Amino acid sequence: MEGATAPVLDNGEPLAVLAGGGRLPGIVAAAAIRAGRPVKIIALRDEADMQISDFPHEWVGWGDVGRLLKSLRADKVTDLVMVGRITSRPDYRSLPLDRAGLIIRSAVAGLFSGGDNAVLTGAMKLFESRGFRILGAHEIARELVAPAGALTKMRETRAASRDVGVAMEAAKTIGALDVGQAAVAIDRRVVALEGAEGTDAMLERVAHLKQIGRVPAGERSGVLSKCSKPRQDLRIDMPTIGPGTVTAAVAAGLAGIAVEAGCVMIAEREETIRIANAHGLFVSGVKPAGGRGR
Amino acid sequence: MEGATAPVLDNGEPLAVLAGGGRLPGIVAAAAIRAGRPVKIIALRDEADMQISDFPHEWVGWGDVGRLLKSLRADKVTDLVMVGRITSRPDYRSLPLDRAGLIIRSAVAGLFSGGDNAVLTGAMKLFESRGFRILGAHEIARELVAPAGALTKMRETRAASRDVGVAMEAAKTIGALDVGQAAVAIDRRVVALEGAEGTDAMLERVAHLKQIGRVPAGERSGVLSKCSKPRQDLRIDMPTIGPGTVTAAVAAGLAGIAVEAGCVMIAEREETIRIANAHGLFVSGVKPAGGRGR
Repeated sequence: MEGATAPVLDNGEPLAVLAGGGRLPGIVAAAAIRAGRPVKIIALRDEADMQISDFPHEWVGWGDVGRLLKSLRADKVTDLVMVGRITSRPDYRSLPLDRAGLIIRSAVAGLFSGGDNAVLTGAMKLFESRGFRILGAHEIARELVAPAGALTKMRETRAASRDVGVAMEAAKTIGALDVGQAAVAIDRRVVALEGAEGTDAMLERVAHLKQIGRVPAGERSGVLSKCSKPRQDLRIDMPTIGPGTVTAAVAAGLAGIAVEAGCVMIAEREETIRIANAHGLFVSGVKPAGGRGR
Repeated sequence: MEGATAPVLDNGEPLAVLAGGGRLPGIVAAAAIRAGRPVKIIALRDEADMQISDFPHEWVGWGDVGRLLKSLRADKVTDLVMVGRITSRPDYRSLPLDRAGLIIRSAVAGLFSGGDNAVLTGAMKLFESRGFRILGAHEIARELVAPAGALTKMRETRAASRDVGVAMEAAKTIGALDVGQAAVAIDRRVVALEGAEGTDAMLERVAHLKQIGRVPAGERSGVLSKCSKPRQDLRIDMPTIGPGTVTAAVAAGLAGIAVEAGCVMIAEREETIRIANAHGLFVSGVKPAGGRGR
């Protein structure tokens, strides 16, 4: 990960982890604790995993902006990591806001239109404007980031490498539109682009398209490529794969998965690679044309 | 449709209609007959509608290249229209080819990799190299093409017009990659991009994403935009909407549908507009930025 900044340790300073779904928030919290930082998890209701209850935590809803700010100040927190899967999107027109939330409604309303990127960027700006520093999960837990090169026993075949390139170009293109981060190509043809459904649902669709003969159904054909959006702030929204991604890729009969090296996290890397090896899939980190080159 | 070429009549010359699914092949055949041309439908097995049996016709499979060429020559056909939906894609590795097909296997194999556009362009080149002239369905049945402006009682609201623009930009962008022709935007956010699944399946996905709260679920929110691919040859592959598209848009709770004026066909226009009017959707033809300007 040449060129990446040094990990932010700041021993002793408390760190808040604003937690969406999945295991990443817990991994980040554990890494911070190993580095000597007290941790408080702010768990997003209906999103965060129950596993976060292993750490000091507090549950909040989308509308609890005021309570959240108050609680962070009471804990003397200035550093904040936003990490984890968000599957629901708040509809700002029907959002229950607390009193502070109502006061800053105009700021909040701006957060919840436009693409995911706009939502997260808006949330980050809101926190930054109130004196918080936003750190990336990958700055706390460096081991999460995919390196360049093969990560599995299986390597890319020449045909798969071509599909990697085709799918990566498509994923970069839709990322520039702030739509999605992933695409699937089979025999050099892009068959699926990620929208609001997310990567796993897109892979389910590919499995279905193979079943009904809409795309060539050869076992171990096609690849998933996943990358960062060109204007994505990796501190708040780093693309991620994990065991579920590999399981979905297996179900879709893909040959493997390529992620943008340095810009995509692998949640539970050991388990992710174990599943890929068990099914003969490759997982590799690549530097796409138009990538960030870190 | 300023700037479009005059309809090709060529009274008396026989016309072959290579027919995929849906009603368009029959509409084109009927228009040709009205213009005084004898018609022969070449019906693609597992794709063409049984309704084509109202016309002189012959069934062929993907591999029957030689038999098809022979039959066209026997009928003294030189003009050919390729029209209708193709839901399956031949896997050229397992394609049963007749003897002529085997002889030209290298040409055929080239057709069946790459995007849809490549497949259809390859098929067109194959026919042209053997002396056929390929005409567009819209050159035979001009009434199929969407004009600019509102086609329904309902007009675009200002919010819907913004979504039209956002979705059209996304659709044009993925068209440039030869991936799809359509996108859905809700509240200025692109939530779905068309891949191999096709427009109707993409709309089913949007309905599902609203159901599970993954995208804002307001009734009559969001639009479908559909356009031609920048390098698409409209003679062989004009984007199409029809009654099924409107029905799927209703199920997805969309406010309406925008198509690229002059470059998208409306199959069964009366029925399509009737359904839209019955459900309060708008359908309009627009000239997108980056469109062909005809």
